[in-house]
Amino acid sequence: MKIVFIGAGNLATRLSLAMQRVGMQIGQVYSHTSENARQLAVKLGCPWTTDLSALQADADMYVFSLKDTVLADVIAQVKPNNGLWIHTAGSMPMDVFEGYAARYGVLYPLQTFSKGREVSFDVIPIFLEANTKKDADYLKKIASALSENVRFMSSEKRRSLHLAAVFACNFTNHIYALSYKLLEQEEIPADVLLPLIDETTAKIHAMPPAAAQTGPAIRYDENVINKHLAMLDDPDMKEIYQLLSRSIHKEAQNE
Amino acid sequence: MKIVFIGAGNLATRLSLAMQRVGMQIGQVYSHTSENARQLAVKLGCPWTTDLSALQADADMYVFSLKDTVLADVIAQVKPNNGLWIHTAGSMPMDVFEGYAARYGVLYPLQTFSKGREVSFDVIPIFLEANTKKDADYLKKIASALSENVRFMSSEKRRSLHLAAVFACNFTNHIYALSYKLLEQEEIPADVLLPLIDETTAKIHAMPPAAAQTGPAIRYDENVINKHLAMLDDPDMKEIYQLLSRSIHKEAQNE
Repeated sequence: MKIVFIGAGNLATRLSLAMQRVGMQIGQVYSHTSENARQLAVKLGCPWTTDLSALQADADMYVFSLKDTVLADVIAQVKPNNGLWIHTAGSMPMDVFEGYAARYGVLYPLQTFSKGREVSFDVIPIFLEANTKKDADYLKKIASALSENVRFMSSEKRRSLHLAAVFACNFTNHIYALSYKLLEQEEIPADVLLPLIDETTAKIHAMPPAAAQTGPAIRYDENVINKHLAMLDDPDMKEIYQLLSRSIHKEAQNE
Repeated sequence: MKIVFIGAGNLATRLSLAMQRVGMQIGQVYSHTSENARQLAVKLGCPWTTDLSALQADADMYVFSLKDTVLADVIAQVKPNNGLWIHTAGSMPMDVFEGYAARYGVLYPLQTFSKGREVSFDVIPIFLEANTKKDADYLKKIASALSENVRFMSSEKRRSLHLAAVFACNFTNHIYALSYKLLEQEEIPADVLLPLIDETTAKIHAMPPAAAQTGPAIRYDENVINKHLAMLDDPDMKEIYQLLSRSIHKEAQNE
C-alpha cells in the first residue's frame, strides 16, 4: 500500500504522518514550494518533488491536499495512472476528478490541523465518497485504520458540513483571538479566560448551545451592551459585537 | 457566617450552592419573582422572600446577584445594616454601593453558569474588590474557600475582563448554535462537530489563538468564501460570515 501526497500543508502533514503511523507507506511528497515539500518529506523519511511530471506512477493512492483554488489545476496536470485519486477538501465536489482519473473519491477529516501539533486521529470524524462501490469499500478500510468514526457523505452535504465547521472552529477561534487582544490591551493575562472557554465547550457536550447561552445579549441587558459598545475602539470589533448580540437576541425570541 | 442572597438567577444559584458546600450558611434568598426565590430556597433549604423590607438584618454578608439594569434600584431599597454588601457583576463598578452601605465590595467569578449544571468552583478565577483593607482580607478568605484562583482587580479592569468574556464565551457559544442550526437544516447530526470544537479549544491551551487560526479566511481562499456566502440564506448569518472572515484576514495581515 503506497501513497503519494500532493500537497504539504497542515492537513497533508497530519494525515500523512497518521497514515504512516498505522503502517501505510508514503512513497513521495509533492509541493509547489520546495521548502514545504522537503519539510514534510524529512518528517516522513521519503522522497519529495516540486515537479508534477516527476510523480511516482505506481502508487495505490494519490492524496490531493491542496487549497481549493489550485486543486482543479493541479489535477489536470497529473498524468493518468491506475491509482485511486482522492482529495481532502470539505467544499470541493468529488467530480472535480471526472475526466482525469478512472478511480476517485474524497476523504475529508473534520478537524483543525496545525503542522506542529499532534492530533489523535482515532476520534476524528472522517467523511468518505468514491465513484465506485469497490473503491468506497477500499477507502473505508483505509479510513477505518485511522479513525473509529468513519461514514459516507455526498459532496453536497459535505459542503454544508464544511460551512458549519468554519463557524464552529475558524470563527470561534478568531473570537478567542479578539478576546485575547482585549485583555492584552489592559495587561490582563489572557489565560484567565481558559476555565471559562473550557466550560463553554464542555457545556455543549451536555446541552444544545442554544440552551447553554448566557450573558448580556440573551438577557437583553442594554445597560451592559451599550457600555461594552462604548468601550470598543476598533470599528470591526464594535460591528461584530452588535451583530452577534442582535443575532443572539433574535434566536432567543424565535424559541 | 451567615449570607443573604439577593437574586436567584444562574450565578446566584451556583454561587450560593458552592458557598453552602464549603460550610457557609445561606440565611435567606430574595428574588423579585416568588417562583425563582422558592426554587433556589428549596435547593438550599432556607427561607425566601420577595419583599426587600423583609430581608434578615443580621447577616454577615449580602450578595447582590442581579441584572445590571436593576442592581442600583434594588440596592437603594435595602435598609442599611452592619453586613458586607457585595455584587457579582463584571461590568458594574464597586461604588454602586456608595452612600447605601458602609462596607462593600465585589466578588466576580469569571464563568458561565446555568441553573441546572454543576460547576467545580475550584478552578474558577474570582476577582475581588472591597472598600476597606479589612474587608478585602475578609473577602479574600471567603473567596479562597471557593477557589484556588483568587485575585484583586479594579472596577475599570474588571469591566474590560467582562467584555473579553462576552466574546470568549457568549459569542463563541452563539456561533456554536449557528453551526448546529446549519447542520440541522441538512439533517446531519450536530455532534459530529464536537471533536473539532474540543480540539479548537484544546489548541489555545498550547498556542495563542492567532497562531492556531486555520480555514478559508486565513488562507484567503476566495473560492471557498464565495461558495459559502452563496449557501447562506439567512442575511444575519451571511453578514456574520463576511465580517468575521474580513476580520480574520485583517488580523493575519497585521502580524
